[in-house]
Amino acid sequence: MTIELGHIRIVGAGLIGTSIALALAKAGVRVSIVDSDERARDLAQDLLGNPSPEPQVEDLLIVATPPAAIADVVSKEISRNPALRVMDISSIKSQPVLDVATTGLANASFAPTHPMAGREVSGPASARADLFIGRPWIFSRDGVDNELAAMVSEVIRICGGVEIERSVGDHDRAVAAVSHLPQLSASLLAKSLLSATDEDLELAGAGLRDSTRIAESDPDLWAEIISGNAAEIRPLLISLQNDLSQLIQSLDNPSAIAELLELGRQGRARIPGKHGGSARNYTYIPIVIDDKPGQLAAIFEECAKAAVNIEDLSIEHSPGQETGLITLALSPIDAVRIADHLGRAGWKVHPSR
Amino acid sequence: MTIELGHIRIVGAGLIGTSIALALAKAGVRVSIVDSDERARDLAQDLLGNPSPEPQVEDLLIVATPPAAIADVVSKEISRNPALRVMDISSIKSQPVLDVATTGLANASFAPTHPMAGREVSGPASARADLFIGRPWIFSRDGVDNELAAMVSEVIRICGGVEIERSVGDHDRAVAAVSHLPQLSASLLAKSLLSATDEDLELAGAGLRDSTRIAESDPDLWAEIISGNAAEIRPLLISLQNDLSQLIQSLDNPSAIAELLELGRQGRARIPGKHGGSARNYTYIPIVIDDKPGQLAAIFEECAKAAVNIEDLSIEHSPGQETGLITLALSPIDAVRIADHLGRAGWKVHPSR
Repeated sequence: MTIELGHIRIVGAGLIGTSIALALAKAGVRVSIVDSDERARDLAQDLLGNPSPEPQVEDLLIVATPPAAIADVVSKEISRNPALRVMDISSIKSQPVLDVATTGLANASFAPTHPMAGREVSGPASARADLFIGRPWIFSRDGVDNELAAMVSEVIRICGGVEIERSVGDHDRAVAAVSHLPQLSASLLAKSLLSATDEDLELAGAGLRDSTRIAESDPDLWAEIISGNAAEIRPLLISLQNDLSQLIQSLDNPSAIAELLELGRQGRARIPGKHGGSARNYTYIPIVIDDKPGQLAAIFEECAKAAVNIEDLSIEHSPGQETGLITLALSPIDAVRIADHLGRAGWKVHPSR
Repeated sequence: MTIELGHIRIVGAGLIGTSIALALAKAGVRVSIVDSDERARDLAQDLLGNPSPEPQVEDLLIVATPPAAIADVVSKEISRNPALRVMDISSIKSQPVLDVATTGLANASFAPTHPMAGREVSGPASARADLFIGRPWIFSRDGVDNELAAMVSEVIRICGGVEIERSVGDHDRAVAAVSHLPQLSASLLAKSLLSATDEDLELAGAGLRDSTRIAESDPDLWAEIISGNAAEIRPLLISLQNDLSQLIQSLDNPSAIAELLELGRQGRARIPGKHGGSARNYTYIPIVIDDKPGQLAAIFEECAKAAVNIEDLSIEHSPGQETGLITLALSPIDAVRIADHLGRAGWKVHPSR
């Protein structure tokens, strides 16, 4: 069944809105994009190349603003188009549904969705037509009119997202645990570095860098997301606070600390691996390289020759000198093959023994 | 000046002790390694290939046990060799110095050091002769006898470490901030995942994975490290607790949350980049690839042809389908060159615009 999308109007030329516009335009869908910020709008329209002129009445309105602005946008648009059908893309779902209910738009005409493709960057300049490829795209389909639901599924399909159905409540509980709490935890940890000396920070390693990466996220957008999902986040923060208090109490007690760390290890092990499957068992192959052009190329050429698939990799650079350590993650079988292959080719390979 | 290291005896066949043994043996130094755990000892000795027989009296004893065991080891060894000279490698420094003072070993004969090359893995099976190459290796040289200090510097040099002098107190304060607090924060966050449902965890992304990676560390070893540095860690945890309480109070106040997130962003920006320098300004180039052998090889071949140096990279796999997103980090100049080069070669390159 082919769905005729007609004309799609997007309000909000940020990372998500612009990326959706690019993906739809690439697929030949008529799309226009606007933003109250003229610079963002102009940039988004330039990126689109030749955006469709704004329609009298659009077939679908995608509201891609920060969550607190959704109801305002809907109120304005509904006066222009009483048959309005809306899809939103914000990172929280309960609050927008409540907000929109006050605008007069029927529940059945509002499709709450959430493409899980955020990044530390923001704005139309970071937009990409392929931002959503293979990413989960939550759709709270319950109660949404069939025709609108079909259009939403088609938008998700065109963008390359993987549609996943969750109720509004299930969504908000899940993202509080897997996205909002990690964001706050990383920001709290990163804030603590303001008290460290430059000399102290010279000793920072990959662990600190990885643990604080998402602390680079846009503060204003995330403040709205966090406060908009406060009801789900609060119990998690209180639980964290209890664990932290208990840790402070038992800081001189190695076995109590070991127990906490062991529980953390068990929690970490529950995170699924790539391809949405359960966590995979990789074998890690460390290789010492010179930190100069061509080294990685040569290694990957060898991997291609040996027909092994690199599942993941990390590059660690050595502070103060020009060597690097690259660690390949592979299936156990591929790991044996490539370690052997690279070793014979003269690489400094250090498989676990 | 060449230092004659003579015979080095290592007590503790874990990741660090075995890695030092491998590096020294590779450089032709006479080295023996023992452990109270016979399996660890046997494995370490096998890895060494042909370890030197244990000497009557060693020239340098490297204690590579968990911190709580150091004083016991020194007490035992000093009765065998009253002229004992000791180097330790534990992740905390004040507590071992205090502990060793009770053994009768002179301060001048105890060299506190800390190679900062820990990993989430442990044990002799993960040991590598190149573990320390280019890594900071702290040496609290003050008060250590000159001959011992020279031997320690030589061991660090042979292992490829970068010797950095810090007082015992400065060391412990620094690692509390850049290593111990991040470890505890990651473990607390990871522990919270035990309360999430499998369905919730399906929505986990790279942010959660990166933020909890170090929660995989060895609980028993880290419990000793944490409790042994409790005095430095406690004020940091209390400060974190205050920030967390304030966050919970202001969870409905977007501007207060934005302020916290902004401070986190500023703290994050203070972490220095690779080569021990200040944080570098990289340009990121996202490329969509098929998740199969040869794709990375081909990209890196192109980078080598264009003579650009990849500073860092990440691979993101798409849940549920077989495409991947690789993001290269390069200098701004290299980024322009390679984006152009790869684009012309037909790759799906998406530079920021």
